[in-house]
Amino acid sequence: MLVDWSARIESGENVVCVASEGTHELAVAVARAVGERGANLVTLSGSAEVERAYLSGYTEHAGINGDDADDLGFPESPAHELALYENADTVLLLGGGRNTAALADVPAATRQAASKARIDVREARMATDWVSTIHPTRALAQQAGTSYEAYREFVHDAVVRDWETLAEEMARVKETLDGGSTVRIEAERTDLTLSIDDRQAVNSAASVAYDSHNLPSGEVFTAPTDTEGEVRFDLPMTIRGQRVKDARLTFENDEVIDWDAATGEKVLQEVIETDEGARRLGELGIGMNRGITQLTDNILFDEKMARTIHLALGRAYSACLPDRETGNDSAVHVDLIADMREESQVSVDGEVLQRNGYFRWEDEFEE
Amino acid sequence: MLVDWSARIESGENVVCVASEGTHELAVAVARAVGERGANLVTLSGSAEVERAYLSGYTEHAGINGDDADDLGFPESPAHELALYENADTVLLLGGGRNTAALADVPAATRQAASKARIDVREARMATDWVSTIHPTRALAQQAGTSYEAYREFVHDAVVRDWETLAEEMARVKETLDGGSTVRIEAERTDLTLSIDDRQAVNSAASVAYDSHNLPSGEVFTAPTDTEGEVRFDLPMTIRGQRVKDARLTFENDEVIDWDAATGEKVLQEVIETDEGARRLGELGIGMNRGITQLTDNILFDEKMARTIHLALGRAYSACLPDRETGNDSAVHVDLIADMREESQVSVDGEVLQRNGYFRWEDEFEE
Repeated sequence: MLVDWSARIESGENVVCVASEGTHELAVAVARAVGERGANLVTLSGSAEVERAYLSGYTEHAGINGDDADDLGFPESPAHELALYENADTVLLLGGGRNTAALADVPAATRQAASKARIDVREARMATDWVSTIHPTRALAQQAGTSYEAYREFVHDAVVRDWETLAEEMARVKETLDGGSTVRIEAERTDLTLSIDDRQAVNSAASVAYDSHNLPSGEVFTAPTDTEGEVRFDLPMTIRGQRVKDARLTFENDEVIDWDAATGEKVLQEVIETDEGARRLGELGIGMNRGITQLTDNILFDEKMARTIHLALGRAYSACLPDRETGNDSAVHVDLIADMREESQVSVDGEVLQRNGYFRWEDEFEE
Repeated sequence: MLVDWSARIESGENVVCVASEGTHELAVAVARAVGERGANLVTLSGSAEVERAYLSGYTEHAGINGDDADDLGFPESPAHELALYENADTVLLLGGGRNTAALADVPAATRQAASKARIDVREARMATDWVSTIHPTRALAQQAGTSYEAYREFVHDAVVRDWETLAEEMARVKETLDGGSTVRIEAERTDLTLSIDDRQAVNSAASVAYDSHNLPSGEVFTAPTDTEGEVRFDLPMTIRGQRVKDARLTFENDEVIDWDAATGEKVLQEVIETDEGARRLGELGIGMNRGITQLTDNILFDEKMARTIHLALGRAYSACLPDRETGNDSAVHVDLIADMREESQVSVDGEVLQRNGYFRWEDEFEE
């Protein structure tokens, strides 16, 4: 699925596989598949503990603490790493890890400075046919609040889909959004109107052929403007390590003017006050992956869950914008998720696209 | 020890660390030290299981079985891997692994073909300040026939030496060999004469500053010619997966003319019959690492054991040869080890350099 559907790896291509801790079995399976396609493979270690050790060592070298990270002087994209990615056709990122908090004691400023210094490496990697996926590890099972066995089944069901059929269905949603001007979302304590005029929706079908770089995926998203009204996000999530429940936003003239949350209101406020763009929406996404039937506190999965929608405060994806137009810009992109299974509907230009989480072409759809 | 003494890593250098399975803790320690020096780090996975999977997948892609490996058509050095090494200053190879037999069912011809196709990558890597070391793993402890605890202590004692002092002592051995013409080795059933005229000995002090690329090291070696006489290798070793015990070689006119072994005579014969050069010696080495006090069935350690010498059939190292002279050439380089602790001596031009494993400057040396 990863090698053929998502990354479309072909004979002679140069592949980089970045394997997090705990993903060795998937790295072995990837190596076999890459070999079978006749492509070339370099496997990198994507260990968070190695990264933490390096950052902490470098901070000591620079002789300062993390609070002054601006002065750290992290070296700009190292030539060897840059050359590796510049000569790669495909990058496969195998997420996993043995401790989701492995970088918790690295100051955020240090991480940001290191990441900023390596912007060229990042751009070279993003210029490839890259795909990011997840291998079930006990650390991720723990984060999801479930057993390792159950988590493995969950990931399997989310990843091993009939992507071709789903891509066709998602194309219908994209078509509706691309042809429409205004989206209205209605649910309990939610009545939100967004403009999608001139915007392009992305059919995120978990394949580089669809400009979709996550496996699993299964969402259609676009970049709205002119948001008006109020919306409640009844599905819990974690933002910057803080649990957020029942967040509510009120928009006026395309800006958040009021907000609250049953839990985590402080971090929500931090997000909103980041910059100008953080008060506006960068994304409207419609989750369509029916293999994802529960929340696992991992946005890669949660936002794709069928019968949910998500809205992101902050940065818009350029893929949704008309040529030469810059969308909403911000240092953040924070997704918030709403359950659409009950008493909810999404309509485009007055026509109902989805009611109670079922699209108008589904058997379960109620007129 | 690895970062400072061996690899001499300095600020701004580009470092590649290749971490085998089971070496994650060392990879973390390396990352911290590399960061502390202000160098740049890319960590690769050196998993034998990933390599096996890739080779087996590629063989399937090529549609043939391993016996026809010449036709496999492995791609020549992939551009991304080559670029990584060409832009690297230092490569640290962390050996370990979770199963020393992980590649046992990959046909040798397949491995050779894959390795041959990637000769440019290998050369780019060898052109850096590379260092190969070992992290204790349970698989290596098993190979050594000892517990994990005991093996960890063993590796620690072998690696954490006063290298500077040892390098000075080894310089005395090198000086003697560089100034000498003929080496004579005498022991039970051993009386061998070798010419070292015009040859340069290498002070293998586990540091790139000494042109020595293994940690641990601790040997002085040279490339002899004109071998005459007989030699018995009383220390057991493993050659191509076969145990070899009490191997004996008889040389005439610089060529093996007779051989036998108490165990493993067949594999010894295979080695000797590989090619012309396999019948001649490529190396005489004198083990001087006093932290290595037992055999562990790992040539990286065994050949460095103090109070032993080793001779290699096959290829000579160019570092030992005068400019523009090519030494003994062969597809193989197989080390055989002899215990020098009892009734043995090594002399150079008639003067005893070492008796019963003690050099003439040691207190234990008996005139």
